[in-house]
This record gives sequence, structure tokens and C-alpha cells, in this order.
Amino acid sequence: MKIEEIIEKMRQSGLESLFVLKPENIAYVTGFKPSSASVLIITDEPLLFSTKLDMETAKTQSCVPVEEFKSIKKLKKKFKENLKGNMGIENSMTIKTYKEMCEDFKTIPNEIIERLRMSKSKSEIKNIKGAIKIAEDSFIKADPSQFSGSEDELAAKLEYNMRKAGSVQTPFETIVASGPRSSLPHASSSSQKLETPLIIDWGALYQNYASDITRSIIKNKKEEEILSILLDAQKEAIKLIKPGIKAAHVDNVVRGVIEEYGYGEYFIHSTGHGVGLEVHEKPSLSAKSDEKLEKGMVVTVEPGIYLEGKIGLRVEDMVLIKNRAKILTNLPRKSFFNNA
Amino acid sequence: MKIEEIIEKMRQSGLESLFVLKPENIAYVTGFKPSSASVLIITDEPLLFSTKLDMETAKTQSCVPVEEFKSIKKLKKKFKENLKGNMGIENSMTIKTYKEMCEDFKTIPNEIIERLRMSKSKSEIKNIKGAIKIAEDSFIKADPSQFSGSEDELAAKLEYNMRKAGSVQTPFETIVASGPRSSLPHASSSSQKLETPLIIDWGALYQNYASDITRSIIKNKKEEEILSILLDAQKEAIKLIKPGIKAAHVDNVVRGVIEEYGYGEYFIHSTGHGVGLEVHEKPSLSAKSDEKLEKGMVVTVEPGIYLEGKIGLRVEDMVLIKNRAKILTNLPRKSFFNNA
Repeated sequence: MKIEEIIEKMRQSGLESLFVLKPENIAYVTGFKPSSASVLIITDEPLLFSTKLDMETAKTQSCVPVEEFKSIKKLKKKFKENLKGNMGIENSMTIKTYKEMCEDFKTIPNEIIERLRMSKSKSEIKNIKGAIKIAEDSFIKADPSQFSGSEDELAAKLEYNMRKAGSVQTPFETIVASGPRSSLPHASSSSQKLETPLIIDWGALYQNYASDITRSIIKNKKEEEILSILLDAQKEAIKLIKPGIKAAHVDNVVRGVIEEYGYGEYFIHSTGHGVGLEVHEKPSLSAKSDEKLEKGMVVTVEPGIYLEGKIGLRVEDMVLIKNRAKILTNLPRKSFFNNA
Repeated sequence: MKIEEIIEKMRQSGLESLFVLKPENIAYVTGFKPSSASVLIITDEPLLFSTKLDMETAKTQSCVPVEEFKSIKKLKKKFKENLKGNMGIENSMTIKTYKEMCEDFKTIPNEIIERLRMSKSKSEIKNIKGAIKIAEDSFIKADPSQFSGSEDELAAKLEYNMRKAGSVQTPFETIVASGPRSSLPHASSSSQKLETPLIIDWGALYQNYASDITRSIIKNKKEEEILSILLDAQKEAIKLIKPGIKAAHVDNVVRGVIEEYGYGEYFIHSTGHGVGLEVHEKPSLSAKSDEKLEKGMVVTVEPGIYLEGKIGLRVEDMVLIKNRAKILTNLPRKSFFNNA
């Protein structure tokens, strides 16, 4: 059914074939996520080309027939005679691959699969919920507000719990940043002992699907005041989210709330992003986004305030868009540091 | 000095400027590895453009002046007037970025930085050794041959030890595959209890540099026989490695040894790859490689034999090329499963 939908979209875009290289796109279409170079060619008779490395797994998991991928050159030769019409290629294709593969074809960059991926199916939502559960259970078990140790040790503990629960890799580098380091939105953890405030931004993988959550653990009045602003801004966004709303409008409202409190210049990233097979995918909830929210999208809402060299706080939850926003994450948003 | 070397290579290639987007290449040149979209422009006066998200860290770590990256469009405008000559771009640039950024420039794809990255400096070798130490210490501590638990649990333990020691993320998905699953060269770990044989392929990060090691833990005669073949093949390769040798020749010799024993068709991947800021980088030790080995390269030597659905074994060590190959990894290559 998924493939028929893609073929229908290809027809509408005047594409005879679609060349798919991005592992997440291949996973979306075939059910198999390659670990090495693979090419999926979608026509009326889709074919997946995988290396020997992946062959055993590909044959078990892919809903599309699998052949061995030997080289771009051989693949090109194989299809040059048969594919005469427009070939769809991905925006993420590298110029190297483009030169090696596409010179003899009429190619059109497109985002058919990325756009279909925006609205999640029931089974995709189940997987995302699975990834949220692993991440949240791990957080509760690690109990950061009581944790006495270093940033590295807390990150290790969080990841250990997720790994044991079946999350095969972190979808992004776990952030554990405390004290003045909390003002670095993408800080790696360090060997420094935990201080206040403490930002934790982490996620798990479940069946190739990601989760992405942030909690800030606070101690004093100033931190509580800033966290309240973020919770206000997040609440406004979540109230607003529904199908048909412009993604940029959500960002605008969140930014507006933070500006009202006088912290506008310290909110230095966008409001959120889609989450699925990739931890950052369409749509983008940013000022520049031209996307509209749709039913079935799963997005983060993550306002943050960063006072350079002093303190930073962020709160990030994941919501599913139904008739309104349904919050998928369950952890309390406010908790106090209690380790000293 | 590094930048002067790059500028010299640019001159030789007729390039007036070099646009660098790949985080590992930016890390190599500036000392700062971006966590969000960044552009490094190398001319006589190099400039790094980073987002607000990374600004605080970039300013501390980059040896090149940093300005704020607002959009590709603004960047293009800024440089259109000044850069009239050939612009070098990376092979890994996506066609989307190419269209957005490069249409008004005369661009030439090149691999200047990737080629310089092949031969490691003293400080790079120190970092790689650091990444090896973290991975090996973790292995010794987890003691896989005595471990009684699931594949997931062993992977969790290995990663926990590395994380605590400061490895901020695994450079690739840790492989723990046992019993018949060992024949999948890129298997994710599973909740299955450890069986024999057991393949573990893991690595750590230290100061952005990676390690990559594989050990197979065996029990019976058949497994010991296959492991001996791999150790033979690996030894031959390591004996052979020195500056000036073709990378493809090393692959050829390893393949020859395995073929002699009648297992040629079961060695289904290449012999090795460079390791540094990326876990897979140039040179490739494969049949198709056109590269020659040089002093300062750090490569893996990793023969494997995979009997589908039955057993798989692989041994992978890292060597530094000096006048001969110097083995950087220290763990014993043969150990017996002893958990039952």
C-alpha cells in the first residue's frame, strides 16, 4: 500500500522511476534499514540492491525483492537501457554519487518519501511510543535529581538503561550539561560533577524509530522563574497546534511569549522538529518553515533560554497531531535538584 | 600550518577558495567539530560560520575566526562579489546544497582535506590511541568470555564503561552477535542469551577520534579452526603493510590466504579502512581501491568468515603505518567462551 502511494505520487510528479539511497527512506519503504550502501529502485516492479554484508538480513526483512549491489557502475548499466523517462532522486544525494550515477539519466530531485514520512501510521506511532517509553523509564531509573556523580556518569547510566531495554544506539549524542555549561545548547557531557541547573537531552531508538526529550532540573528561584517562562511558552504552543496551522506560526507564538518576558534574544534555536526514523525530520517548527501541520505528524516542542556562561534551561516534549496536539511524553516538567 | 598546507594544495589544484561543510573536515581544520550546520570558507583569510547554537563553543575551540551563520542565501550573497575564481567543494555535498549555494560559482569537487586526513599527525595518533584505550579497558572490565546475560546486556555494559571513561557516543552501532546470528556481519545486538561463537565489534570516541576493534570468542574445534585461518590471514597482511604498498594488494593477499583454506566465498567484505575523525575514512583496503599506503595512516585489518545461518567469526585490529605496520590494539586475539 505504501509503495502504491509512492508510485501514485511519482506519476503526479512525472517520474518514471525513483532512486532511493537514504537508509531511513529505504527503511520506510521496505521495512529493512541497510547498514551499508544500498539502492532501492522504485518502478512498477521495485527492487532493492544490498551488499553481501546486509544480504541475509535484507532478504528476511525487506518487503521488496533483493538483489546484490555490486557497484554504481553496474547498476547504471543495468538500468540505462530500460529507464528512459524522468528519474526521481533525493535531495540528500551527494554530488559524487550524482556524477557517478545520474549523468545518463534525466533526473529530478524530489521529496516524495520525506513528505510521506511526515504523517505517521499507527505502527510508526507505536514504535515512537516505544522509543519514548525506553527513554522515560531510563530517566526514572537513573533519577537525575538525586544523582551524585559527574555528567559523564549520569549520561552513562541513562544510556546503559536504554541499551539494556533494546535501544541499539542513541539517536543523537546525549546531552548532560550542568552549571554554567547548561548555556551550551549542544554541550557534550564532561567529567565535571553535576551542578545546578542541569539540562538533560536524550532519546532512544525502538525498531529504528527515535525519541527526543529534554528536562531541566533546577534549584533556585531564578531558575524556577526561567523554567516557568518556558513552560508557559510550551503550553501556548501545544494549545495552538492542530492540523492546518502553519509550523512557522507555532514558532512565532513561542518566541512571542519568551520575548514578552524579556528573554527573546536568548532563545537561540527553533521551536521544534519532526521525529520518526530520523531524530530531526520534516516538518521544521521554525521561523523559516513553509510547512503546515498535518494529522499524524509527531513533533517536538522545545523552548529554551540560554544566558551565556551562566545558566541555560530547556524543556522538550513530543506531541502527536490529531484533531489537537496529544502529548506523548509523560515525565513531570519541573523537578528540583536534590543531590547535595 | 595545517591551513597553509591546505592553501598550498588549493593553489596546485587551481582553487581560489574552498567551501567546507563536513563536520569532520571542519574539525580537522579548525579544531572545533560543529553540532549544527556550519560552513568553513578557506581563502587567505579563512572564516568559519556557525549557528548561534554552537557559537559559544566555536569561539573557544576554533583556530579560525567565527561569524554567525544565518543562511546559505546570505552567505552566497556575501561571497559572490569577492570570490571570482574556482571554488573547491566537497564530494559529500548534497545536490540540495549544491543548488542552493553553488549555482553562481565555478565549482570543482575535490578531496584535498580527506587526502590530508589520511596521514595522521602525532596529536591525532595520540587521540586514536586514547580511543583504543577506552575501548580495550571497557572490554577487559566487561569480560565477555565470562559474561552471562543477553547480547543487549553485554553491549550495554561495554558502552557504559566507555561512556564513563568519556566517550561521548559510540562511533558506530556496537555489534554483539552470538550463535547463528554471528554470521550477520552487521548484526544489531538482541535480547537473546549469549551463545557461541560470539562476535563483538565496538569502538569509542576520544577527542572526536574513533577506535574500531573486533574480537570473536569461541568454544569448539570448528570455531578454533576458522579463527586460526583469520589470524593467519591477518598476520600475512600486517607483515606486508608498509609505505608504498597498494591497498588493494593487502586485500588481495588476505583474500588469497582465506581462499587457500577453501573459505574464499565466505569473506564477504573488504579487508580494512582508515580510522580517524570518521570510523570509516580513506584509504580503503579493498579490491577496488586505487590508493597506496603511506606513513602515518591508521587502518583496520579485519578478515572475517561467515557461514550463513551457522557461524561467523571476525578479528579486527588497528595498525599505524610507520616503516612497517605497528599494531595499536593490544587485546589477545584468541579467547574461549567460559560462561556456562
